[in-house]
Amino acid sequence: MAKEPRLFEIPGFRLAAVKAGLKASGQPDLGLIAADEPVSAAGVFTTNQVSAAPVKLCRAHLRENGSRARAVLVNAGIANACTGAQGLRDARACARAVARALRCRTREVLIASTGIIGKSLPMDKMLAGIEQAAGLLPSSRSGRLFSRAILTTDTAPKEAGTAFRLGGKTVRLAGATKGSGMIAPRMATTLTFLLTDAAVRPAVLQELLEETVRETLNRVTIDSDTSTNDTALLLASGRAGHGVLARARSREALTFRAALREVLGRLARQIARDGEGATRLVRVAVKGAKSRYEAEWAARAVADSPLVKTALAGADPNWGRILMAVGKSAALVREERVRVAIAGVPVFRDGSPLPFRPSEVSRRMKREEVLLEIDLRLGRGEAEILTCDLNHGYITVNAEYHT
Amino acid sequence: MAKEPRLFEIPGFRLAAVKAGLKASGQPDLGLIAADEPVSAAGVFTTNQVSAAPVKLCRAHLRENGSRARAVLVNAGIANACTGAQGLRDARACARAVARALRCRTREVLIASTGIIGKSLPMDKMLAGIEQAAGLLPSSRSGRLFSRAILTTDTAPKEAGTAFRLGGKTVRLAGATKGSGMIAPRMATTLTFLLTDAAVRPAVLQELLEETVRETLNRVTIDSDTSTNDTALLLASGRAGHGVLARARSREALTFRAALREVLGRLARQIARDGEGATRLVRVAVKGAKSRYEAEWAARAVADSPLVKTALAGADPNWGRILMAVGKSAALVREERVRVAIAGVPVFRDGSPLPFRPSEVSRRMKREEVLLEIDLRLGRGEAEILTCDLNHGYITVNAEYHT
Repeated sequence: MAKEPRLFEIPGFRLAAVKAGLKASGQPDLGLIAADEPVSAAGVFTTNQVSAAPVKLCRAHLRENGSRARAVLVNAGIANACTGAQGLRDARACARAVARALRCRTREVLIASTGIIGKSLPMDKMLAGIEQAAGLLPSSRSGRLFSRAILTTDTAPKEAGTAFRLGGKTVRLAGATKGSGMIAPRMATTLTFLLTDAAVRPAVLQELLEETVRETLNRVTIDSDTSTNDTALLLASGRAGHGVLARARSREALTFRAALREVLGRLARQIARDGEGATRLVRVAVKGAKSRYEAEWAARAVADSPLVKTALAGADPNWGRILMAVGKSAALVREERVRVAIAGVPVFRDGSPLPFRPSEVSRRMKREEVLLEIDLRLGRGEAEILTCDLNHGYITVNAEYHT
Repeated sequence: MAKEPRLFEIPGFRLAAVKAGLKASGQPDLGLIAADEPVSAAGVFTTNQVSAAPVKLCRAHLRENGSRARAVLVNAGIANACTGAQGLRDARACARAVARALRCRTREVLIASTGIIGKSLPMDKMLAGIEQAAGLLPSSRSGRLFSRAILTTDTAPKEAGTAFRLGGKTVRLAGATKGSGMIAPRMATTLTFLLTDAAVRPAVLQELLEETVRETLNRVTIDSDTSTNDTALLLASGRAGHGVLARARSREALTFRAALREVLGRLARQIARDGEGATRLVRVAVKGAKSRYEAEWAARAVADSPLVKTALAGADPNWGRILMAVGKSAALVREERVRVAIAGVPVFRDGSPLPFRPSEVSRRMKREEVLLEIDLRLGRGEAEILTCDLNHGYITVNAEYHT
């Protein structure tokens, strides 16, 4: 057993990936996860009021089936969002096809899609792809390609996994996610799939997923735009053999939570690092805010500021823009108390600029990861937001190709 | 008398502009407005909690002097923001120098600055510039250059004026503003100066300025970043000879308000059109919202969305991004009711895409002005926000030059 299990290595699940013909590039674009039997399932979805048909279907199936599931179908290329009643019929038809192939019930099937908004799924290709993927499941060899099949124009697949001990047994947890980067300019959709052989009651699984997503995926911002398709699903097969985790605050559940947070945190970093056009990962760390909410507001204002992000692209130690951004946020800020450091170099303190060598800070800003530290010195609230620079690549990806 | 009076033609004021040496380009960079006697003055300032020294000084002087003023000093090149106690001392010294030259009191002098954040004013150049500008005032010839002296890297000066009748007299109102565009990448600072020979009580002037700025300048967004220096000042000399406007809701005051709104509206359009790197003006018009606040939230979400703005840069009729943006806003949205039209062409109706010719819509999106219409069909709230496309030019201006 590898120290870091991969998604297709989690006991109790089989994965497959095929080329259904949805991506112009001819890359794998349809993935299927099948549980050997019904498993605990938890889901977190977009907060956008305009949500895609697969999101609506997932929410309904989890509710109708008591948060248990048998399969997850994913396609990349078409988001099946803003497609009206036809979109919902198509999503349901896909779920039915999976259920027929796996001999389970339709409501045991979860679905996620990513790609162009407003286009209908090519159902002939989808149904053929589902049949092909289901046929590959026994061998599970194509399952290695699952993390590639969910990508749009991400520059690399994004996976993380961990193994840990629970009740004297080894438990495995692994995840795959996709980020923002597209051949044609589409939504910066994030889809995340997590599998574990831990034994967890559905309600506990849901609670822990919601908490850890809030601390990880929801702290990434590439361009402040919230996708219509955002989905994170966590399935737990229970094969590890330890006693079922029945309370979210038990010692064992907290061990599982820590592993989940670690894997989600590593996936979140990979998303930020691979933001559209991005050349570097940026961590905006705020402390000293009146509350952790205010810390998050301030950090988000910095991470979403186009002027801060373009300064990062140019490796320009333009701390004035950082002060501007915290100042416009809803967090309480007293200019005369604020301290700012860029890439470890203090540049502003107590209302006045500090002397520093711009060329030295600029050199540090060219590293793969840049830390912006802001201390508001008003309280104990802390938060960190992950983002990337705003570069010509973002404009090229999103303006120069056409729907 | 021209139908559209210019800023330097308003009775009761004299203007001057000089090259003080603050701009590397050698262009005029210091402007002075002098009223022949104390006049009613109103000011609206940035809501950013981090505000520049001149903003702090203006607020204090208006308060201390009962909203009356004798002079306005403006410089471009250095923002005098985030400069601590030294910045306030410098701003006060500039006001004192103007007061000495014009033989008025320091608290009768208002100040505005735009340019680099965090750098101190070169006081030798400022004081020499003030002396030179004051010396030019009697002839007022250099006043024609005032609207140029306040620019940073705007591609053109921005002026608007109007004449109208009030109480049997002709009244003139004119304004100049600056937008966002910079040689070196600085804040998208907006400064706006308005002069009129109307006779208006200070409290009424302030109320009407606040109301009309809310409907015009505050409805422009280039990049969602709120400057530390934003300032709009309105001075009224009373020379037109009509009875003093003493109530904001009188018929005469509403006539004046309409003229003020018209002039501010025309200045706001010029700012949006000349956004950094922008190739076109974009009007986002939302109607059918539950309230006018919700309409504004929805319109702002669309106007600030990097994905919508890059689609506009590429003239791509990507309506899915418009739906995504209204959906993520705080305004109530029901996907199945929404209608969207791009450049006059309906593209989405009642939850489903409408057939349209993308090449035809794309052609219309290449015009100088593009209208995005969103009808939420839930209420009677309406709002319009002005913005521009997000282009390679924005990245170049803001990333590729260094502080």
